[in-house]
Amino acid sequence: MSLSASYSNATYRLYDDKADFHKKAQSIAVGLTVGSWTDLPEAAKEQMQKHLGQVVSVDVSESSNPGERYADIEIAYPDANFSRDIPAFLVTAFGKLSMDGRIKLIDIRPSADFLSAFPGPKFGVQGIRDLLGVHDRPLVMSIFKSVIGQELPNLREQFLQQALGGVDLIKDDEILFENPLSPLEKRVEACMSAAREAEQATGQKLLYFTNLTGSTFQLKDNAKRAIAAGANGLLFNVLAYGFDALAELAADPDISVPIAAHPSLAGALYPSMHHGISAPLLLGKLMRIAGADLSLFPSPYGSVVMPKAENLAVKEALLTPSLPQKPAMPVPSAGIHPGLVPLIMGDFGPEVVVNAGGGVHGHPGGPAAGGRAFRQAVDAVKTGSSLVQYAERHKELKQAIELWGIRTS
Amino acid sequence: MSLSASYSNATYRLYDDKADFHKKAQSIAVGLTVGSWTDLPEAAKEQMQKHLGQVVSVDVSESSNPGERYADIEIAYPDANFSRDIPAFLVTAFGKLSMDGRIKLIDIRPSADFLSAFPGPKFGVQGIRDLLGVHDRPLVMSIFKSVIGQELPNLREQFLQQALGGVDLIKDDEILFENPLSPLEKRVEACMSAAREAEQATGQKLLYFTNLTGSTFQLKDNAKRAIAAGANGLLFNVLAYGFDALAELAADPDISVPIAAHPSLAGALYPSMHHGISAPLLLGKLMRIAGADLSLFPSPYGSVVMPKAENLAVKEALLTPSLPQKPAMPVPSAGIHPGLVPLIMGDFGPEVVVNAGGGVHGHPGGPAAGGRAFRQAVDAVKTGSSLVQYAERHKELKQAIELWGIRTS
Ligand SMILES: [Mg+2]
Ligand SMILES: [Mg+2]
Repeated sequence: MSLSASYSNATYRLYDDKADFHKKAQSIAVGLTVGSWTDLPEAAKEQMQKHLGQVVSVDVSESSNPGERYADIEIAYPDANFSRDIPAFLVTAFGKLSMDGRIKLIDIRPSADFLSAFPGPKFGVQGIRDLLGVHDRPLVMSIFKSVIGQELPNLREQFLQQALGGVDLIKDDEILFENPLSPLEKRVEACMSAAREAEQATGQKLLYFTNLTGSTFQLKDNAKRAIAAGANGLLFNVLAYGFDALAELAADPDISVPIAAHPSLAGALYPSMHHGISAPLLLGKLMRIAGADLSLFPSPYGSVVMPKAENLAVKEALLTPSLPQKPAMPVPSAGIHPGLVPLIMGDFGPEVVVNAGGGVHGHPGGPAAGGRAFRQAVDAVKTGSSLVQYAERHKELKQAIELWGIRTS
Repeated sequence: MSLSASYSNATYRLYDDKADFHKKAQSIAVGLTVGSWTDLPEAAKEQMQKHLGQVVSVDVSESSNPGERYADIEIAYPDANFSRDIPAFLVTAFGKLSMDGRIKLIDIRPSADFLSAFPGPKFGVQGIRDLLGVHDRPLVMSIFKSVIGQELPNLREQFLQQALGGVDLIKDDEILFENPLSPLEKRVEACMSAAREAEQATGQKLLYFTNLTGSTFQLKDNAKRAIAAGANGLLFNVLAYGFDALAELAADPDISVPIAAHPSLAGALYPSMHHGISAPLLLGKLMRIAGADLSLFPSPYGSVVMPKAENLAVKEALLTPSLPQKPAMPVPSAGIHPGLVPLIMGDFGPEVVVNAGGGVHGHPGGPAAGGRAFRQAVDAVKTGSSLVQYAERHKELKQAIELWGIRTS
């Protein structure tokens, strides 16, 4: 195999009780590139060689139990075959192939040349920390509780109460769309005025991620309208629009605020063992390459579950120095309360957003107390205290752990 | 349940050995709309009632075998909660929920009001037939064999040979992207000149579906460039860009040619029993609402298989008069040869595109003979002949059935 030109690789897991996986790998490498090979005349082979896919590896896991035999197959696709956009590579590597039996796309390794087309996150982990002026602890994010059908003054008050607890980031609910009660610009203005009010009280800078929605070809305009109205962050349901929409938004110099990627619809793609796209690729590597500054994904702690190993692989994909794009902030979400903070910080390390909805709003002292309880939990871990110790002198944390307990594993 | 306002429904299949499915249905209806209900004060309830989701039905299929107990749950979502675009509805109905256990989105029933925002296919079945002047038989489509790495004269010759057999439609390979050898406008010009040449010879009008690719926000421009260069059809990898991109392209009055939706990446979404989106919804109803004039999907006859019942449900969704959008042409694809034509016409009825790649190019007499063999097979069925009978006086059909045989079930 001569790989003098540039190739981008894809790795698949294929389940099949009987297939000749080496033959299958060859048929993928040929079928998804030049179409046919052995019957080509020599002159044509010479010309087509640079477009021919290559089998990199075939790693068979034998089993005689029905349904358990599989192989991991890595194929190198010539960069000459596709344009420098994610749809082109995904369609090449997993377009037709996705429909060809029990096959899941588990990883990609795009070439340096392909990756160079993607500026990636404008801010990333460091940029978000710089915007907030917070460099020495995990960030805390709060999610609006109920937003549909709420008038602007209610939304503003909800924002303010969350903000007063000292959280760093507040995000819209991903199911809040353009609507007469809280249209985009008015919502941004109301929430950002609450953010300034809270900042006066807490001294804590705040980013508000307003939900970017609407028709595909209006997304850039909507983003710019939100920013013109004062938005300092955007939430985006990436999978409803495709990775390229995110990549184009992130690459636009006028979209000068961080983008948080919501995993909406991801459950249609990652959980099956036999089909779809693995979570670390879908919510980790692809989100980062496409330019998400933060990526939300189901935490291993709540009711919406992803196994912890998979969770940590998503995190790894977002943070690994092996990609040229800036690292993106991991935001494990769902089921988070202050009693989980030591565990989250243990599992994820320092670069993580502690993201809570019910854990803020359900606090007995209200959402401001909820935010404070999270900040106290973070401070406890940072200063080497146990939550129980720290709660002795911090009543919001005390109330939180009385209600939700402490989970250590 | 009072449904005086307008609601759009979604139906899910949930697998769970123990869950209280009725309780689960309630928690979906509340959780994905107003967030919480029982703890709301009465005044708030009055205001929020119109935003509250409603459980339409819970149909439990009991089983004590592990993994086999499931329920079909239909929820009505108030149209007041989302904008009139597919991302908004999908994110509402299956955004977060997609990650909540073993749950698959199996159908949607959007309200008349929601549907009225979608003009749907510009041409549809009747419009495509009118463009071609063919009203009395299934259409025949041929797919380029190998396109990557091919110079324009080669592509033109490939196009011409396919066209000379009398096929109605020719489509690009979905993995042909913008590239120096066959850039969009030059490719369109070369292929359309071959189409005119073939039309002189056969008297048969031809539609050429050129692959619409590139960055999301350039799609409209690219489509218009292709059309300005003479393209009379577009192929689009819908799932790589999202349904809204298709909807916006289809609604643009300047994109005045039919759009064929390619099912690229669909296998990441539909085949799992427990996750994703059902094929009839994904490749049938949603494609049609979004405006595909033709929808390709894996045939039940080839190696890329979808069970026949699912296939016919895709077809039904594309053709049923119960939607306001024009019917879209079903294009079952993969593994099609002339000996399958009676079976296809039996399974799908008259409104179907017989779509072949290898079945045209692999004909012993070459692709022109391959096209003729398909047209002969169609004519045989239309005139009530058996293929064997008809092949006695039609040598291309004879060669085809000698090579591939005849399949009757
Ligand atoms: Mg939410
Ligand atoms: Mg193809």
